[in-house]
Amino acid sequence: MSEQISFEPPRGMRDFYPEDMAWRNRVFDAFRAAATQAGFEPYDACVVESYALLARKAGEEVGNQIYHFTDKSDRHIALRPEMTPTLARMVAQRQHQLSFPIKWTTIAQCFRYERMTKGRKREHYQWNLDIIGEDSILAEVEVLGTACNALRKMGLKDEDDRVRVSSRALLAELLQASGIEEDKHASIFLALDKRGKIPDEGIKEILRDGGIDDNGIEKAFELLNVKDLDGVAKLVSQDSIALNNLRELFRLAEIAGFAGQLVFDISVIRGLSYYTGIVFECFDTAGEFRAIFGGGRYDNLLTTIGGDPTSAVGLGFGDVVVTELLKSRLGENAALPKNGVFVGFMTPDEKDAALKVAAKLRSNGENVNLCLKKMKPKQFFSRASTSSCLQAIYLGPDDVASGKAKIKNLETREETEFALN
Amino acid sequence: MSEQISFEPPRGMRDFYPEDMAWRNRVFDAFRAAATQAGFEPYDACVVESYALLARKAGEEVGNQIYHFTDKSDRHIALRPEMTPTLARMVAQRQHQLSFPIKWTTIAQCFRYERMTKGRKREHYQWNLDIIGEDSILAEVEVLGTACNALRKMGLKDEDDRVRVSSRALLAELLQASGIEEDKHASIFLALDKRGKIPDEGIKEILRDGGIDDNGIEKAFELLNVKDLDGVAKLVSQDSIALNNLRELFRLAEIAGFAGQLVFDISVIRGLSYYTGIVFECFDTAGEFRAIFGGGRYDNLLTTIGGDPTSAVGLGFGDVVVTELLKSRLGENAALPKNGVFVGFMTPDEKDAALKVAAKLRSNGENVNLCLKKMKPKQFFSRASTSSCLQAIYLGPDDVASGKAKIKNLETREETEFALN
Repeated sequence: MSEQISFEPPRGMRDFYPEDMAWRNRVFDAFRAAATQAGFEPYDACVVESYALLARKAGEEVGNQIYHFTDKSDRHIALRPEMTPTLARMVAQRQHQLSFPIKWTTIAQCFRYERMTKGRKREHYQWNLDIIGEDSILAEVEVLGTACNALRKMGLKDEDDRVRVSSRALLAELLQASGIEEDKHASIFLALDKRGKIPDEGIKEILRDGGIDDNGIEKAFELLNVKDLDGVAKLVSQDSIALNNLRELFRLAEIAGFAGQLVFDISVIRGLSYYTGIVFECFDTAGEFRAIFGGGRYDNLLTTIGGDPTSAVGLGFGDVVVTELLKSRLGENAALPKNGVFVGFMTPDEKDAALKVAAKLRSNGENVNLCLKKMKPKQFFSRASTSSCLQAIYLGPDDVASGKAKIKNLETREETEFALN
Repeated sequence: MSEQISFEPPRGMRDFYPEDMAWRNRVFDAFRAAATQAGFEPYDACVVESYALLARKAGEEVGNQIYHFTDKSDRHIALRPEMTPTLARMVAQRQHQLSFPIKWTTIAQCFRYERMTKGRKREHYQWNLDIIGEDSILAEVEVLGTACNALRKMGLKDEDDRVRVSSRALLAELLQASGIEEDKHASIFLALDKRGKIPDEGIKEILRDGGIDDNGIEKAFELLNVKDLDGVAKLVSQDSIALNNLRELFRLAEIAGFAGQLVFDISVIRGLSYYTGIVFECFDTAGEFRAIFGGGRYDNLLTTIGGDPTSAVGLGFGDVVVTELLKSRLGENAALPKNGVFVGFMTPDEKDAALKVAAKLRSNGENVNLCLKKMKPKQFFSRASTSSCLQAIYLGPDDVASGKAKIKNLETREETEFALN
């Protein structure tokens, strides 16, 4: 006799039953379709990475959260917390063969060992878009346009979400103009990024501990009150590259047809320290959920692992928040449209005919869910109506005797007769 | 300065560059399409499982090969070596809510720490089809028909592969008829399964060590010479359930249209001990590769983890062998058909027009790879021809001035003029 063991997944890990998988497929299909439509090439790598690679890139916080272990040959390996170090490794490996710019995409499972709170599991999937080796703002436009397209393909409306755009380079210029030296910028960015998560007083304390004087702190907070690019223009020089880049982004997004989705928001900073240019975060307009996606330009990723300097724009789009948002906007049961034919039979004598009908429909490209057991009419139609199928064919002795049967639309209840042979 | 770190993936793990990913997508798309067409519902679970669950089900050999470790809360977790224990856990968890039979499918990444030999990595993807809670042979037919359909969708021809079918239950009847007691059957199955991998003499030795006498060994080997079901019929009783089930399988496969892919082969045994009925393995007809897929009926899976007894038919179909086979039959570069439009521009003055054309084509549902940099004609068309696109649009100053441009088919070299607005 075997002892009963737990039927639950390990703590923090997710099971996807068919109804969960339907949502995941809706989201992943939109990721894939939007990336394909914009010419991004799919790539992937194993979720197991070398610990040395991950630790090199990861900030201290993430470093503590890495699932890591040694294999039987004492190799120090880990489950990746994000895809970017792996991307950097793969690009660095072929840096002299690839034709830049490259546009790559993946849907990567990522692991973080963190305290469990609502909506925070220890693994999630993250759709990544990266354009590597292109300095022009067209790269930002392609990445943002593709992400917005994915939201539309999932079924969200234009008014459901907005992308808040800012620029690390612009913030740096503004801090510089306020007399705050460059070596203080990184710690200011990290502190200001906590806004909304901890009280402003706490942020000021962090800045004070980081060696920023009261005047600097006041200036930093003042900057966050700038509302638009015209407000920015009053504070920086006319030939500010950062400002012109932001203006170019909005101009090109207008041509590409998604400028209405973008808003300038100077308070968008992004936690990770490696961003160097334009940064962005997408939120639901109702403000109910955490960020849907985020990203920006980063310039020194390859150099941290020993590759050549290369400019890149990247985006990370998790599966959790957008799925919650979709369920809330479309309804819990709206994951996939009904499709296909549910086929069943009343007695064992109709089994062969049912199999034949199923095979014929499938060879015509139809999706067919063949019931493997005989069923009474009531049971059959009850199952059919809760299935994912739109139509049903139920064969009884009379149908086989007459050589004719009916296909029923389960929504309209309309029936159409057809010949069994 | 940072020390250079390795750009290689950890030993035994695979990177998928875009050209590898194209093959993987060809294979996975066929898995998904065939499963959907046959009404299998997708499910999934995290690659991290509890070690206790995996060790319970795994044979001793697999048990030694599990990647396992303890997390920061001292939980003993592992990377699954196969999906079946997870499937059993998920089904057991909802055994009283699910409407049986269920037909489930997944493409699961699985890990085994094993000696590295050619073609054997430490991770692979395995497509799983399982029908749980159905005793009739229609379950076997659905699983096998779906797998054969996937092979066709990948582009293999009917003559490229054959499924060898046998039955554990039949072998048990035959051994019984030869006077070999039931408690010896399992060790005989495991020994005979090694045929072709180790010399017959070695198998005989294993059998002798397992307590089978010389007469039994001779009988076991004799059985492997039975060539067809008529040969079987001479050795077992007329009302043998196992024989009738095999006959029913071939009869139903005829109705479903894939009987030509099946051959009876008594030597198919399958290594794992949990099979109880029909078993099968698919091979390329040229005999160049290892098994493409394998599976069969198993009856006591849920009971080993504490669930109720349930009959099931399962299939595991790895990504490695079939990809090698496809490359060998279709050619290394045949992964995906060319598709989409490559769009580029000669000088920065055409950038806006190129972006506009790309946006317009995309909104019409076309796939468009927009080049982000200005390019000279030669460079543009050289890139276009090595891209995955079938068509190209290249904008120069004259095109923008005239408001007209050309779309070129890169294979036929045919050009069609269109208006830029």
